[in-house]
Amino acid sequence: MRLRDALDAIRPADPAAMAAARERHTRLTKPAGSLGALEDLSVRLAGLAGRCPPPVPERAVVAVFAGDHGVHARGVTPWPQEVTGQMVANIVAGGAVVNAFARQVGAAVVVVDVGVAGEPGGVRRVRSGTRDLSATEAMTRDEALAALDVGVAVADELVAAGHDALLTGDMGIANTTPAAALVAAFTGAAATVVTGRGTGIDNETLARKTAVVAAALARHRPDRTDPVGALAAVGGLEHAAIAGLILAGAAHRVPVILDGVSAGAGALVAAALAPDAVDAMVAGHRSAEPAASVALAHLGLSPLVDLGLRLGEGTGAALALPIVASAARVLRDVATFDSAGVARK
Amino acid sequence: MRLRDALDAIRPADPAAMAAARERHTRLTKPAGSLGALEDLSVRLAGLAGRCPPPVPERAVVAVFAGDHGVHARGVTPWPQEVTGQMVANIVAGGAVVNAFARQVGAAVVVVDVGVAGEPGGVRRVRSGTRDLSATEAMTRDEALAALDVGVAVADELVAAGHDALLTGDMGIANTTPAAALVAAFTGAAATVVTGRGTGIDNETLARKTAVVAAALARHRPDRTDPVGALAAVGGLEHAAIAGLILAGAAHRVPVILDGVSAGAGALVAAALAPDAVDAMVAGHRSAEPAASVALAHLGLSPLVDLGLRLGEGTGAALALPIVASAARVLRDVATFDSAGVARK
Repeated sequence: MRLRDALDAIRPADPAAMAAARERHTRLTKPAGSLGALEDLSVRLAGLAGRCPPPVPERAVVAVFAGDHGVHARGVTPWPQEVTGQMVANIVAGGAVVNAFARQVGAAVVVVDVGVAGEPGGVRRVRSGTRDLSATEAMTRDEALAALDVGVAVADELVAAGHDALLTGDMGIANTTPAAALVAAFTGAAATVVTGRGTGIDNETLARKTAVVAAALARHRPDRTDPVGALAAVGGLEHAAIAGLILAGAAHRVPVILDGVSAGAGALVAAALAPDAVDAMVAGHRSAEPAASVALAHLGLSPLVDLGLRLGEGTGAALALPIVASAARVLRDVATFDSAGVARK
Repeated sequence: MRLRDALDAIRPADPAAMAAARERHTRLTKPAGSLGALEDLSVRLAGLAGRCPPPVPERAVVAVFAGDHGVHARGVTPWPQEVTGQMVANIVAGGAVVNAFARQVGAAVVVVDVGVAGEPGGVRRVRSGTRDLSATEAMTRDEALAALDVGVAVADELVAAGHDALLTGDMGIANTTPAAALVAAFTGAAATVVTGRGTGIDNETLARKTAVVAAALARHRPDRTDPVGALAAVGGLEHAAIAGLILAGAAHRVPVILDGVSAGAGALVAAALAPDAVDAMVAGHRSAEPAASVALAHLGLSPLVDLGLRLGEGTGAALALPIVASAARVLRDVATFDSAGVARK
């Protein structure tokens, strides 16, 4: 599947399945509405699957897209760029936080080098890091499309291998800078609103980072009605790949659990290309990075976990997976008042 | 173990283990503080266990304490009292929401009839429902102590059987009324603040329920410096048992994940009897019932999940279990900068 195929295949949620889920909730052995946000989530899962009960995810996978960023040269983070590749190796070896969380919740982890700087690069690397978005386009349009296609192809392979929930992950030193720029481009929010402390930068670095984001927006004037153009101008290769993953997940009608700000940026690109893709998105958590909340609000999504995480990697999405699976389980596993012989009020 | 033994055995968290956990966090391959609330939680788990890394819960169990309430006769809920026993049967059969959630997160479920109305009662039933707390003491002091001992004995057995995390659960039609009264008694909050809609009652029933709570507080003037007396006057048998479970869990230095408002009420009793027991408590979620938030604030605990649930049974605690285990896993499983060869900023 290529990007075009994914976009052609995406359909909105199935209203009949959603109605069936809502009706079923009235018969289950619990007070109406007593599961709060999990009831809405379970209805959305039914709508995505096109049936009630929806399948319960049992073979979830975190797809961690790794990339580097030319804007790193502008001093937007104190971490050396080499850390991206070193952390990719750490994830492959199973030593990162995302590995620990994924093991806890029974999810697999795959790492895809879509744009790490340095040699050697795998077959899915589109280029060795983006260009400096404050000086020029971060990617050409063809590079952005190629990175979108990487995400589509990865989702395609993972679904073909039997994975039934896709969790977004990212690794890329400096990647909250393009994420902030993308969120600003697609929501209209100001650089001062979307730019955050990322890994925990000091005030001076934050001021520099905010200025870089503002300058990039002023230079490129990214146009949200040309999503690929905006992505190419101010985005990252991993954000493009995440957008592709989301779109292919939506095409396959598999839930895509979004991690933090990189996912929010990618999700905005995906929603701009195919608004119905939002029906496949589940907001895993609310990252402490401000652009993440701006993106979720724009997408109309409420996060499941809100614990101040700002790590990325897919860690917040992994924490949310048992909640998503539990929501689906309610519709499948819980007895009805009639079947259990429980009286109603 | 009896209540007295549990109280004698409870010790505060180990500061050396907590310091070791904080120090270890600085060496793990992630930015400092990037796991937000999970870092504090992992430090608390280390302090409770007395070692770093703390054990990762692998054999958690939800203990669901069931009881009925004489105050049901006052019209505080539209649900018939028979539903308590019917739902106990539903949980035993595996058909309730807590069963579905527990299966998802790999926890066992046990149900303990500490005070269900009607015949026959098991060996752990202290009495067949409490008396009407708006007319007289809900329990005698000896009954309250017996129910506390039930919770202690259940925790004792579960820990002896190898369970390494205890999740509180409850089932009892009308039990948010004594829970509200207990929270008011131990925090000083007004009846209007702590009384909520429980299963979703209408305005008229809420007004009646609030008046019942206010009248009970005015009648009994429960004294928080006599925790067992206050519990006996306005509590429920399941709240007493939950308090006992928490205290024995603290004595065994096993984490106790609190569910909603019944757990909050029981936790206040436990903390009044042994302030250091708070170190064993993890707030699983924030129930929509207002007294739950009042209780957590009084205990100084922040909930892990906040999704508008108001079901009880242990459902919110079950959703939190993977987050608790993930927090422990960070300290055990994640590589250090040195071991993974990752550069620092």
